[in-house]
Amino acid sequence: MLVTDETQFSKRASQFDLCAYLSTRQEQVEAALDRSLPVIYPEQIYEAMRYSLLAGGKRLRPILCLATCELMGGTIEMAMPTACALEMIHTMSLIHDDLPAMDNDDYRRGKLTNHKVFNEAVAILAGDGLLAYAFEHIVEETQNVPPDRLMKVIARLGRAVGAAGLVGGQVVDLHCEGACDVKIETLNFIHAHKTAALLEASVVSGGIIAGASDADVQRLSQYSQAIGLAFQIVDDVLDITSTQEELGKSVGKDLRAQKVTYPSFWGIEESKRQAQQLIEQAKSEVAGYGDRALPLMAIADFITARTH
Amino acid sequence: MLVTDETQFSKRASQFDLCAYLSTRQEQVEAALDRSLPVIYPEQIYEAMRYSLLAGGKRLRPILCLATCELMGGTIEMAMPTACALEMIHTMSLIHDDLPAMDNDDYRRGKLTNHKVFNEAVAILAGDGLLAYAFEHIVEETQNVPPDRLMKVIARLGRAVGAAGLVGGQVVDLHCEGACDVKIETLNFIHAHKTAALLEASVVSGGIIAGASDADVQRLSQYSQAIGLAFQIVDDVLDITSTQEELGKSVGKDLRAQKVTYPSFWGIEESKRQAQQLIEQAKSEVAGYGDRALPLMAIADFITARTH
Repeated sequence: MLVTDETQFSKRASQFDLCAYLSTRQEQVEAALDRSLPVIYPEQIYEAMRYSLLAGGKRLRPILCLATCELMGGTIEMAMPTACALEMIHTMSLIHDDLPAMDNDDYRRGKLTNHKVFNEAVAILAGDGLLAYAFEHIVEETQNVPPDRLMKVIARLGRAVGAAGLVGGQVVDLHCEGACDVKIETLNFIHAHKTAALLEASVVSGGIIAGASDADVQRLSQYSQAIGLAFQIVDDVLDITSTQEELGKSVGKDLRAQKVTYPSFWGIEESKRQAQQLIEQAKSEVAGYGDRALPLMAIADFITARTH
Repeated sequence: MLVTDETQFSKRASQFDLCAYLSTRQEQVEAALDRSLPVIYPEQIYEAMRYSLLAGGKRLRPILCLATCELMGGTIEMAMPTACALEMIHTMSLIHDDLPAMDNDDYRRGKLTNHKVFNEAVAILAGDGLLAYAFEHIVEETQNVPPDRLMKVIARLGRAVGAAGLVGGQVVDLHCEGACDVKIETLNFIHAHKTAALLEASVVSGGIIAGASDADVQRLSQYSQAIGLAFQIVDDVLDITSTQEELGKSVGKDLRAQKVTYPSFWGIEESKRQAQQLIEQAKSEVAGYGDRALPLMAIADFITARTH
């Protein structure tokens, strides 16, 4: 790119209306999720699955999947069943993580958690049902996508949620609870598996559906790993800064009391710098695609914008 | 078939050495399961998954899958990853069913249940990991099978384990616990979903992998639904007759105290008759395939042979 082109590209990037983009996509995803899971007999299990699946949230994973599918020349329609499946998998991980045997949370996003509304048995089964249905839904509902691409998507999703992904990250996280000698490598492992693995599957699967080359998939994978880690660092930073404001605790005291986070290794300023660097790295991976990459670039920026 | 052919076929069927057949297949399945899941970091989750996956059992689902694949002209190798996936799914359902929030069982097949050896959180995650890995394993390990066939297998497996299968059956079963007004339609629903759905997926997926026609799949489906229901009826009968022998309780008393079972609707003799009728029906579905169907016919007979 020439310098003038680059300047114009930066200008268009800064003018891209991410808010409108996210809001349109979110509506489309909500409608598709609502249609994906009708209530039939035995009603309670479908209601339990729907309760958590339709409990709101940013729908970041489906939106990323749709965005990369479009970026690589595919359509929203081609990727929508996979986008919904990603949200089903994400929802199952939230339902199971909230269980008494795990994080024992009563509320999520201001609503009672699944096992508080139904019961533990139903919540476990609702998670299992969503996970199984995710794979069925991709196969049954996807149209105009060659089966070999869908096979790759299914393998990626399976890996992202299993012991080599979400499940593995959660196990290590549970082990580290209350431990004071957690290494940064372990923290990286937890977040690479608990957060980044499914984000990567979301971004990459959209590309695969559209027929992305191995080189494209590699770029998308780098992009998603970088935003995944940045997302977690920013989350850790916000956790501390909001505690500071709300409780007036000193940061040093908070860091000592806190479970292990990135700021506990790097401090707040260095954490912010690392997050910003990861975002720049993510954007540089997709900048070469030009205007079609504007949504992915804006989503990356959106992540660090939260620190300000 | 001429009468003489039929007589000879019956003779060959009665001479078929099911014991040797099952034992060979079981060894092959055990070896494949052992290879399917190596232990890597974080070790505990892989050990928890392996603990239950390799805890023995008849391996009936994988063996049925391999048998129908051969019946329809395919090879053991083509179906082995799917056979292993079926056992992974079955194992996940056992681990989750045994949890304190569900059936709260401390022992299974004479060994401590997963959550007693590890803990509840790890047991939930081990189940999730096995379910996710089942789909990944099929895609990553299957060779020489066209992707459109594998897609059908994945959709069938997803449906068999989700709210339209195992999960739905378990939810209704939990609701009926302690209820005295359970209808036979409800009992049929529970067993059609908790037991027969995954048996059907096992039988049908082997056929699909080998390229079975829709008509063949239909026959295999009928066969598996019949043996699935017969299996449950026989289980119910054995439950009562063994109680009678061991505790010397009168059957009538036992029936009143017992949770709802087929003998509680039909009595023991009629239940046995119904099971036998289902087995004859199952065998008649596959008899037309001749000698290649001997394993499926012998497996069907094996189910009612348990009543004697």
